[in-house]
Amino acid sequence: MKGIRNITPYVPGEQPNYPDMIKLNTNENPYPPSPTVATVLKHFDAEQLKRYSSVDNLALKTVLGGKHGLSPDHFLIGNGSDEVLAFCFLAFFNSSDPILFPDITYGFYKVWAELFKIPFKELPLNNAFEVNCNDYIQLNGGIIIANPNAPTGLFKPLSEIEKLLQKNQDVIVIIDEAYIDFADQSAVSLLDKYPNLIIIRTFSKSRSLAGLRIGYAIGNPEYVKIVESIKSSFNPYSVDMLAENIAVAAVYDEEYYLGITAEICKTRDWFSKKIEEIGFHSLESKTNFLLLTHPELVIEELYHYLETKDVFVRYFPKIERLSNYLRISIGTQEDMEIVYQLMADYIWKKTT
Amino acid sequence: MKGIRNITPYVPGEQPNYPDMIKLNTNENPYPPSPTVATVLKHFDAEQLKRYSSVDNLALKTVLGGKHGLSPDHFLIGNGSDEVLAFCFLAFFNSSDPILFPDITYGFYKVWAELFKIPFKELPLNNAFEVNCNDYIQLNGGIIIANPNAPTGLFKPLSEIEKLLQKNQDVIVIIDEAYIDFADQSAVSLLDKYPNLIIIRTFSKSRSLAGLRIGYAIGNPEYVKIVESIKSSFNPYSVDMLAENIAVAAVYDEEYYLGITAEICKTRDWFSKKIEEIGFHSLESKTNFLLLTHPELVIEELYHYLETKDVFVRYFPKIERLSNYLRISIGTQEDMEIVYQLMADYIWKKTT
Repeated sequence: MKGIRNITPYVPGEQPNYPDMIKLNTNENPYPPSPTVATVLKHFDAEQLKRYSSVDNLALKTVLGGKHGLSPDHFLIGNGSDEVLAFCFLAFFNSSDPILFPDITYGFYKVWAELFKIPFKELPLNNAFEVNCNDYIQLNGGIIIANPNAPTGLFKPLSEIEKLLQKNQDVIVIIDEAYIDFADQSAVSLLDKYPNLIIIRTFSKSRSLAGLRIGYAIGNPEYVKIVESIKSSFNPYSVDMLAENIAVAAVYDEEYYLGITAEICKTRDWFSKKIEEIGFHSLESKTNFLLLTHPELVIEELYHYLETKDVFVRYFPKIERLSNYLRISIGTQEDMEIVYQLMADYIWKKTT
Repeated sequence: MKGIRNITPYVPGEQPNYPDMIKLNTNENPYPPSPTVATVLKHFDAEQLKRYSSVDNLALKTVLGGKHGLSPDHFLIGNGSDEVLAFCFLAFFNSSDPILFPDITYGFYKVWAELFKIPFKELPLNNAFEVNCNDYIQLNGGIIIANPNAPTGLFKPLSEIEKLLQKNQDVIVIIDEAYIDFADQSAVSLLDKYPNLIIIRTFSKSRSLAGLRIGYAIGNPEYVKIVESIKSSFNPYSVDMLAENIAVAAVYDEEYYLGITAEICKTRDWFSKKIEEIGFHSLESKTNFLLLTHPELVIEELYHYLETKDVFVRYFPKIERLSNYLRISIGTQEDMEIVYQLMADYIWKKTT
């Protein structure tokens, strides 16, 4: 057969689904979406669904504009930040020079580069798993950095991000802020100064709406318009009507989300301290997950032990430098107390 | 700025939204989704949205398999048939030979070909606006035909589609069946015989769910797997959790949808006959819209007249051969009686 794309057939990872499991493998939020989300859902008139959803998503852009102090034309809305990122790759990474991103980061950057045949270079994180911004001062066709980075959880201060923008003013620099609500300073404050900056956000993590598929890009209207054109040439209605309505409600419920975010950060810091006491080492996370290891454990065994206890976490056998690390999403305080106890028991059994 | 895609900035078409308008411009269904859709929506537990949606959409594939008498691995589910088609273009149209499609057809085929830099040839419809299948027996890198075609509404009998498949067994032939429920024979019966056949369906037209974004491809599992890999490399969770749940309910409600589909066809045939009586000519539609003209009218003026009466239809000033045609989606019988009366009044005023 002629013209068939040569692509590795995909085998979807198993998503466990047991009634009493503790699911800490995909960085989902352990808390439900805000109460208004449920209300919007309950009162949504199903008949409206016979009409196409909004093609410009102006309702959501307007409330996001209010939140960030920007006009609606600074925003592009998409079906999750994955779609927004894919559109941005198509829109901005068309140079023959390679785009740059860390060797350990969100795995999809490499997947999109390969899918769209974009030349790329993966720059190694340093020994402390940090992005070294000086590495990004070299010939390139664009840059993408997740800040905080995943799966390390580490956050780069804004001063370093600014250096990166300053030294690369002839290309688009995408800062993927999927986890920014669990950290401190967003790069949004740099938008005025650096028209080459595009910021990516998602409702899947801090907004407890992974199942609804809403992500967005923030940037200079001149460049956002290019991404909008890509979206319009690919799938103009990708944000469904229910999703946009619910997302608008979620933006209004800022206070609720600040509350659960603070709760998750508190649990994260508690959990991190507790596991250090029993010999684990974790990277300083500014996200809703921890990357951790233990000098005396084969981490894969702990992974399988937790699995037998219906606790599902993530490990990365294919990334050499992470092969003895676990990534654990932060659940509720109750969840994490159970997980801590299981890990403590495991250590006790292993060392006695 | 380096690497920015050269793409025509998109200006979204205005979508009218008045309380008493009659909206017949985007081939939406005038009837609400089935009652179970409203029930699923009302009882959906908002907390579930904190989890990612299904990556394999097995629930929906399974009920669709039951409906079509095929195993689930014959299906790919996407965010509307637009997304499914875009993925299929990426999956199947990678030859250096041009893909073929009619010069008057769904406008997006050309948009995707341009977006993905796929060589293409547009083959003119004949004077009766029909696809001539013999034209498609020439060197090509793949074929896509909408059957029924849009915006003509004309249906190609299966015997001709089969000839096309037979003569092009070395490439993928996509039959876009967005409107098939308003016609007779689907090409699904040819799947066994022709592994090069891919069929595209949508929930946006006959299923009254345009706002929800569900479309699917049906094909040989070997090739469906390739599209699945593209989806997984682009946006694996594009079908949101609510959309999949509601779509499953809609498949179970087949009887309701058969009822409203029959109603729309009846109204279409009534409307077509009535406007012929007042001098209009319409193509024989097997869809939920009519393409019509009048030998003595400047159709653009009728378009604007209807607009002043809050009736919104579609015309195509940029397609030369259609510049004196209107496309009118079929609304409820009540809607179409109003539209008929307006058109009759207009003709009367113009000719007396």
